[in-house]
Amino acid sequence: MAVSPLAPDSFPDLPRIEGVTFATGAAGIKYKNRDDVMLALLKPGTTVAGVFTTSATRSANVLDCQAKLGGDERGPAAIFVNSGNSNAFTGKHGDGSVTAICDAISAVAGIDQSRIFTSSTGVIGEPLPFEKITFKVADLHKDQSPDGIAAAAKAIMTTDTFPKGATTTVDIDGQQVTIAGIAKGSGMIAPDMATMLVYIFTDAKIGHEALQWLLTDLTNKTFNNITVDSDTSTSDTLLMAATGASGVDVTSQNAFAMALHGVMEALAHQVVRDGEGATKFVTVTCSGAETDADARKVAMAIANSPLVKTAIAGEDANWGRIVMAIGKAGAKADRDLISISFGDIMVAKEGWRAPDYSEEAASAYMKNDEIKITVDLGLGDGTSTAWTCDLTHGYISINADYRS
Amino acid sequence: MAVSPLAPDSFPDLPRIEGVTFATGAAGIKYKNRDDVMLALLKPGTTVAGVFTTSATRSANVLDCQAKLGGDERGPAAIFVNSGNSNAFTGKHGDGSVTAICDAISAVAGIDQSRIFTSSTGVIGEPLPFEKITFKVADLHKDQSPDGIAAAAKAIMTTDTFPKGATTTVDIDGQQVTIAGIAKGSGMIAPDMATMLVYIFTDAKIGHEALQWLLTDLTNKTFNNITVDSDTSTSDTLLMAATGASGVDVTSQNAFAMALHGVMEALAHQVVRDGEGATKFVTVTCSGAETDADARKVAMAIANSPLVKTAIAGEDANWGRIVMAIGKAGAKADRDLISISFGDIMVAKEGWRAPDYSEEAASAYMKNDEIKITVDLGLGDGTSTAWTCDLTHGYISINADYRS
Repeated sequence: MAVSPLAPDSFPDLPRIEGVTFATGAAGIKYKNRDDVMLALLKPGTTVAGVFTTSATRSANVLDCQAKLGGDERGPAAIFVNSGNSNAFTGKHGDGSVTAICDAISAVAGIDQSRIFTSSTGVIGEPLPFEKITFKVADLHKDQSPDGIAAAAKAIMTTDTFPKGATTTVDIDGQQVTIAGIAKGSGMIAPDMATMLVYIFTDAKIGHEALQWLLTDLTNKTFNNITVDSDTSTSDTLLMAATGASGVDVTSQNAFAMALHGVMEALAHQVVRDGEGATKFVTVTCSGAETDADARKVAMAIANSPLVKTAIAGEDANWGRIVMAIGKAGAKADRDLISISFGDIMVAKEGWRAPDYSEEAASAYMKNDEIKITVDLGLGDGTSTAWTCDLTHGYISINADYRS
Repeated sequence: MAVSPLAPDSFPDLPRIEGVTFATGAAGIKYKNRDDVMLALLKPGTTVAGVFTTSATRSANVLDCQAKLGGDERGPAAIFVNSGNSNAFTGKHGDGSVTAICDAISAVAGIDQSRIFTSSTGVIGEPLPFEKITFKVADLHKDQSPDGIAAAAKAIMTTDTFPKGATTTVDIDGQQVTIAGIAKGSGMIAPDMATMLVYIFTDAKIGHEALQWLLTDLTNKTFNNITVDSDTSTSDTLLMAATGASGVDVTSQNAFAMALHGVMEALAHQVVRDGEGATKFVTVTCSGAETDADARKVAMAIANSPLVKTAIAGEDANWGRIVMAIGKAGAKADRDLISISFGDIMVAKEGWRAPDYSEEAASAYMKNDEIKITVDLGLGDGTSTAWTCDLTHGYISINADYRS
């Protein structure tokens, strides 16, 4: 599979995070000749928070993680991920697979079961061959290295066309803390699902409740505002681990929240840039809505619309389809107050085509790789931004042309 | 544009409906060398009911129809439709266009403005050249014929690949009433919208309130359960006219309701069969839900899922994507109670792959033109059926490859 034309030039140089080590290995779950398992070990006292898919058919691993979060955090912890099989819709066998993996890690690494968090990503409904994983656990324990995060970013890929990472440092009263994160998604190939997994590490010190609140809030501004095809995975998982090794308490530190927001937004954008068949990266902003929630409905309705996304693929300045998407969004809107812009070009104003609209200028703008669509509803102060990609023949090829 | 492979063999032989006459003409609004306007005249006392798009950016015509329904029904009435321009998002000009058309019809046919219902379908955001229409009104009045319904079905087409019609007769205590309907949708080509228009005529006698209630109820079982691409038109309109010319009162007659249901379902299916790029007609039934509303959420989530629809296009028995769609639907579901069938083949049972699942048999089934997907949630008595088509390269070609 060719690398997405929207991929960043290179994978960032991710720094060590004190208190975290990584190892990867090739368990042969589905893929040949590549790493497909990763184990991260976290120092005693590491705070772990998470955000998960809301799917009613979520995987055994997701259910297990949700049950474990918020417990006693004094001991060491671990995050394990396998690619190639999602362990979703695998009945009691799936629950047993999670237990077997956690048992193996607990035995070899001396970590309490309740502090071991696992994710699986790949095909749905196939029993997970967990023996292949438990067989590898001793090696994964032995090979731990503080420099393994780049290899981990590759091991968690399914049909991603590039590994995804982001990092930043924050100055808190003259002391530095570091954040580094990796993600996978949303390339896929039948019968895999578009699943998103994200792991973020920091040496900052912060309690579980504060970290969980921050993570949930920032997810609603980043990962929850991206869409490739409106489908929702059974496995989506975002885990964040704060080791506290820097000794710097970041609780209620706005600088830390802003830095984390930046890392999460960068990873979210990389997921969209690897959307199946994507050739355009699209930013949709809705302002002037009665509420932020209404603005989000409109931005997501536009970002999810197959008609809007195919028009963008065709480099067609088809703003009538934006009007359609606003109309169906379920948010309060008044035709005669709506304005729509493509980039800096106002295409519609006050309920009609803008008086100086130039089809030629709008068409030229649509040839860009990055497209900005801005809608103002003219009603209030509500605003929201969503990110998506175009809908192309590539999406159909990836999802329809190959048989499972 | 080639006719859809799912098209019926031929257009049905639609009977005369006493009290209704039709005429069509070529106003040259957008298309060349074809009829693009139709006018139906309805005898005095005809009951008119309607169901419309819920879009917040609905067209001037839709707003005008909604305002007029339920008024004094003693006089004659008219239904006018043009194709090639939707008169949506055309500001005050759009409202004026509707008034100008109604004025012209009122003057030539002696019908009160409040009894003239109009629809426009086609490009969004372009001013409607209403003078081309008003210029044709005298001809449309002069050419009225009780046999014009088949020509009307063609005149309202935009990028439909075949005209759509259905008819039935009902016996009410030994007396016959007739129902005949026509529809357009959902073929489209940039920059047209997927718009659906439906007009149903009957010589039955029924009051406005009873007809409106019946139409709304049956729409929720037919047209509101079809989807091609989840996008919602600014123009969707269903109008029904009951002339009463048969003298047969059908108020509260279950036989009439069932017959009308049949006509509406047949037209709804034809719209799906003309879905952009469609090669498979798909029926999705959800049973065992806690409520009918939950069942509808699940059936529509499956029918709207791009991943499910591309899998069907690829003849891929990818039931993991059905699990995904059930999970995201927002309905109550318990993994361990869910079963899924393709046709008569049970693929998943009690939260896991069915014990005697045969990938070979399921793959062979997916080669059919008509696919039935059945999901049982195992929770209650709620049930619902949705109809959709597959998502193919043809959809992308129609909506992305051509520039407006």
